[in-house]
Amino acid sequence: MDEKPEMNFSCPVPRQRYPNILLGHGSGGKLMHQLLEDLFLPAFANELTETAHDCVYLPFGETTLAFTTDSYVISPLFFPGGDIGTLAVNGTVNDLAMGGARPLYLSAGFILEEGLAVETLTRIVQSMKEAAEAAEVKLVTGDTKVVDKGKGDGLFINTAGLGIVEHKREIAPRHIREGDALLLNGDVGRHGIAVMVTREGLEFETAIESDCCALAGLVLELLAADIDLHCLRDCTRGGVATTLVEIAGTAKLPIEIDEAAIPVTEAVRGACEIFGLDPLYVANEGRFLAFVPAAEADRALAIMRRHPLGQDASLIGVVGEGTQGFVTLKSLIGVRRVVDMLSGEQLPRIC
Amino acid sequence: MDEKPEMNFSCPVPRQRYPNILLGHGSGGKLMHQLLEDLFLPAFANELTETAHDCVYLPFGETTLAFTTDSYVISPLFFPGGDIGTLAVNGTVNDLAMGGARPLYLSAGFILEEGLAVETLTRIVQSMKEAAEAAEVKLVTGDTKVVDKGKGDGLFINTAGLGIVEHKREIAPRHIREGDALLLNGDVGRHGIAVMVTREGLEFETAIESDCCALAGLVLELLAADIDLHCLRDCTRGGVATTLVEIAGTAKLPIEIDEAAIPVTEAVRGACEIFGLDPLYVANEGRFLAFVPAAEADRALAIMRRHPLGQDASLIGVVGEGTQGFVTLKSLIGVRRVVDMLSGEQLPRIC
Repeated sequence: MDEKPEMNFSCPVPRQRYPNILLGHGSGGKLMHQLLEDLFLPAFANELTETAHDCVYLPFGETTLAFTTDSYVISPLFFPGGDIGTLAVNGTVNDLAMGGARPLYLSAGFILEEGLAVETLTRIVQSMKEAAEAAEVKLVTGDTKVVDKGKGDGLFINTAGLGIVEHKREIAPRHIREGDALLLNGDVGRHGIAVMVTREGLEFETAIESDCCALAGLVLELLAADIDLHCLRDCTRGGVATTLVEIAGTAKLPIEIDEAAIPVTEAVRGACEIFGLDPLYVANEGRFLAFVPAAEADRALAIMRRHPLGQDASLIGVVGEGTQGFVTLKSLIGVRRVVDMLSGEQLPRIC
Repeated sequence: MDEKPEMNFSCPVPRQRYPNILLGHGSGGKLMHQLLEDLFLPAFANELTETAHDCVYLPFGETTLAFTTDSYVISPLFFPGGDIGTLAVNGTVNDLAMGGARPLYLSAGFILEEGLAVETLTRIVQSMKEAAEAAEVKLVTGDTKVVDKGKGDGLFINTAGLGIVEHKREIAPRHIREGDALLLNGDVGRHGIAVMVTREGLEFETAIESDCCALAGLVLELLAADIDLHCLRDCTRGGVATTLVEIAGTAKLPIEIDEAAIPVTEAVRGACEIFGLDPLYVANEGRFLAFVPAAEADRALAIMRRHPLGQDASLIGVVGEGTQGFVTLKSLIGVRRVVDMLSGEQLPRIC
């Protein structure tokens, strides 16, 4: 944890810069990384900054804490499988879990738009309470602000999370190694599609529920079993594809994935066709990638499959040889192609 | 720090409840406290919740950390003496300082409105960098979200802060004692008025600058000098008056203040008359109240006055006898009256 921060993201095409913020700056892809590199890092980078990670590690004597924050601006506020409150708890819990930390405490900052129904807020606060109990974290401090009607969108929530690191492993993109197996805990694309379907007012034969859930329990089981976890990452904005491109770029190692091994439900595949989306770029809120030594893949998969949140876990790829930080996909029809980071906006305000 | 949380705020008039969120729910007064009591506390209260404090204390072995969060939705983004970035750093630093903690780390969550000028964001990020350096805190983790044009207001920022408690004092409203002296570090009303003047596009002969600054340095000097601090509180939303009403209500002790002892500049007094505001209810971002034993008042005042942020420090009141949690003010014309909490909105979106 004492290495220099990695500040390079794979960005193989020339950059285009914009004078104003675009929706795409929030979509987790290239534009967001440009903003990070051009604007935030020059101002804020310090010896603790770890841009290639979901949280930062803070030493306090013998104790190492993990600290992270996320704002949630999802629209609509309610979706099949959860609401902005569920998401605000689970999303931040998962960022701590992906850092290998046990999530303990959350703060919650609410930005309410004038006119929001108190009943709506009450339901969402109740969801947060239930999600926090399920994830075994405590909401310990908070804040409420109100903005004039027309200057917000009902409700935005920020949560910051604090967790404790109870092991000596260094879990980070730069620790993936040649030959590592790449595991995924379940089917992808459900969260983004569930939100899109709700937003567009569509109905499908099979209801698509978000996969939104807290992953800390499953990660802590892998740690307790002493699985040599090299890197963990949840596949949120930008989906599995963007997440992998980031990791490969940071680690400067090639990653090869097999599309056929990545579970996608028929309902999600159908909806993706209607929306013109690739499920590999669709946001998830309960799916993560684990990089482990090949020799430990079977044991890790067995642990994942025994857990309610990993029943469909699968081996979806490997870390290859060389120094090229690219992701290669063997497609369903057997063609190999390079996977690029999400460019611009795909699904805005999905989290 | 192991006592039960105090959940009673002085609320001497019958409550009126509202089905929808009003601007006043964000103004730090009665409506906000009702929302807290009716909605947030029933869901989130736990053994760590300290609703009468600006931060929560978290034990990690031998170490006690302080944790807090605030969202900043101020309009306009820039005001004389600072901007939303300065405020987002200093406001959260001050919440930690008021808990007697040394601020160490901040997270920053940005909610950008589509169309925001990147140059504006760059200036604000630069302000945050400078404010963080001045306050000796590090911005260590962050997040960026973008909302569609018309669904935000340029920029909202959330910061969460982590500090360390380096002493054994229990600094909290419930620790104020009969006979305590009440100290204030300078003139009041500047922040709220500076924002209002900018918002309304007014010009005064004397420019009014916000008092926005980080108070941790001054508080740490008081602690280092072993001043027996019973309670510290910055006078933000709702101003000195609302802050005192909260403290008196929590401590169930009467507080008597002398209006003549509270510094207000001529410029602020004039502007307050134009706006029809009482300077005691106007928000500050660099003013705090310190409750100390009467015997230590002179020594504490001397330390404050030697510090750049306490040159106009004054003794403004005392904690009286009895069990009534009310604040009494001796007005400029010598009349005594009970001070009430800010009711509804006075200056919306001041922080």
